[in-house]
Amino acid sequence: MNELTIRSQSRCFEGMVMYCSHFSQCCNINMNFAVYVPPQAKTQKVPILYYLSGLTCTDENFTIKAGAQRYAAQHGILLVIPDTSPRNTGIPGEDDVYNLGSGAGFYLNAIVEPWSQYYQMYSYVTQELPDVIQANFSVDATRQSIFGHSMGGHGALICALKNPEKYRSVSAFAPICAPIQDEWGQNAFSAYLGTDFALWQEYDATELVKKTQLSYPILIDQGMDDTYYIQKQLLPEVFADACQSVGQSLNLRFHAGYDHSYFMIATFIEDHFIHHAKALLS
Amino acid sequence: MNELTIRSQSRCFEGMVMYCSHFSQCCNINMNFAVYVPPQAKTQKVPILYYLSGLTCTDENFTIKAGAQRYAAQHGILLVIPDTSPRNTGIPGEDDVYNLGSGAGFYLNAIVEPWSQYYQMYSYVTQELPDVIQANFSVDATRQSIFGHSMGGHGALICALKNPEKYRSVSAFAPICAPIQDEWGQNAFSAYLGTDFALWQEYDATELVKKTQLSYPILIDQGMDDTYYIQKQLLPEVFADACQSVGQSLNLRFHAGYDHSYFMIATFIEDHFIHHAKALLS
Repeated sequence: MNELTIRSQSRCFEGMVMYCSHFSQCCNINMNFAVYVPPQAKTQKVPILYYLSGLTCTDENFTIKAGAQRYAAQHGILLVIPDTSPRNTGIPGEDDVYNLGSGAGFYLNAIVEPWSQYYQMYSYVTQELPDVIQANFSVDATRQSIFGHSMGGHGALICALKNPEKYRSVSAFAPICAPIQDEWGQNAFSAYLGTDFALWQEYDATELVKKTQLSYPILIDQGMDDTYYIQKQLLPEVFADACQSVGQSLNLRFHAGYDHSYFMIATFIEDHFIHHAKALLS
Repeated sequence: MNELTIRSQSRCFEGMVMYCSHFSQCCNINMNFAVYVPPQAKTQKVPILYYLSGLTCTDENFTIKAGAQRYAAQHGILLVIPDTSPRNTGIPGEDDVYNLGSGAGFYLNAIVEPWSQYYQMYSYVTQELPDVIQANFSVDATRQSIFGHSMGGHGALICALKNPEKYRSVSAFAPICAPIQDEWGQNAFSAYLGTDFALWQEYDATELVKKTQLSYPILIDQGMDDTYYIQKQLLPEVFADACQSVGQSLNLRFHAGYDHSYFMIATFIEDHFIHHAKALLS
């Protein structure tokens, strides 16, 4: 139970980048995640910031590309970066397309066989993984926040909106804001959730915010040259309208010229750390 | 002549990351490089900082992993990251091993056939590429500096030491400091340069510094948990002894716990930008 395998580790900004694996009870298979342990954790219990990655990513992309460790070290925040899905489950076709199966867990609990045997990412990131982190690192589990990118931005928004007391803040880079209204979301929700439209709404940030508002402001950054924004896969305006209709505080920033890549994330990540540090360290 | 193909570009810190290709006259083949154009280049000619990468790298590794764009934007410096070798030359065995051929050009001009037909990386990075940069970007070519990592640290040191007037500053992360004394260097120099030991010395930083000193201090960062340092492939102490014997100013910093990875580079890259900005912007 909660036993970790450390695949590799490297010192970074006086803290430690660690690539870990463990057997996940709820996903019924070994799962990977990355952690950045800030130097402050040597002497105190530090707050936790979860980062959920986008389609096709593993626990490596953000860890390598975002330049986040500098700010995690500066603020004394432990970063946790789960993988985006179970892998090597043996489900036929799990590796065939980029937007379903491996790398595309969509942070929900699948109910359709055979996905439902392994794809329980919502329970994994909101319950099991926090338990694993608390058992293995010097953290204060009462102080945790969450953010993410694209599919992981969707994940961060729904985790926060479904658990107003669990996280102190939320933010996202180019999130999928209304999955039941876009092709990626419809495709994944059909496969994982079947045809129960009421259940679909339980994993859609735009629907969720109409029912539950957060006491804190949501931060979203969106590049205006982002292919998927232009293709209407992300729909931040739809989410903004919903937030406005219910009085949810939202800071939605559009950035001319920026695309969907980690170069956009690297540019604005400092602002996201400031946003979360305000909630986690006050 | 000097015509660029832009493979892709992304906005980053208000400037632009660009992956470029062009036909290299001296390497006799298409070559790749990456550039970061800082926002200041929109209105002025900016100085140039060349980064030479290590074994197995392409122009992508540093561009993605180092977090350098933040500092290049801050100081207004254009970054140029050449690939580490010609590729797809058709030389038999060019892709067979990690430390010779593709990804392992060692920043020298090969004289042994068939490498000599393409592997002219020294002339490429010191002469042809600067001409290409000057022809295509808003730069002040009288202000340029150079740095690198591992094999690219060796490259940066020899480029600077062989051209005391061409660069204003030099630095390196975990450089190969005395290639004629280590296995990587001996293997590569044998293959590319043959048995002329006098020629070997022309590409060895430790030998070069005994003949020519730089008017400016050299900065080197070395992690103490670096596998290749421990295996004596890097030999910074040998270089430090040579510097001391001839009065070359050297700031060699050892860092407990750091390895050979880009997590080490990301940690200390701000210091390297401060080092180069002092020389480039004064």
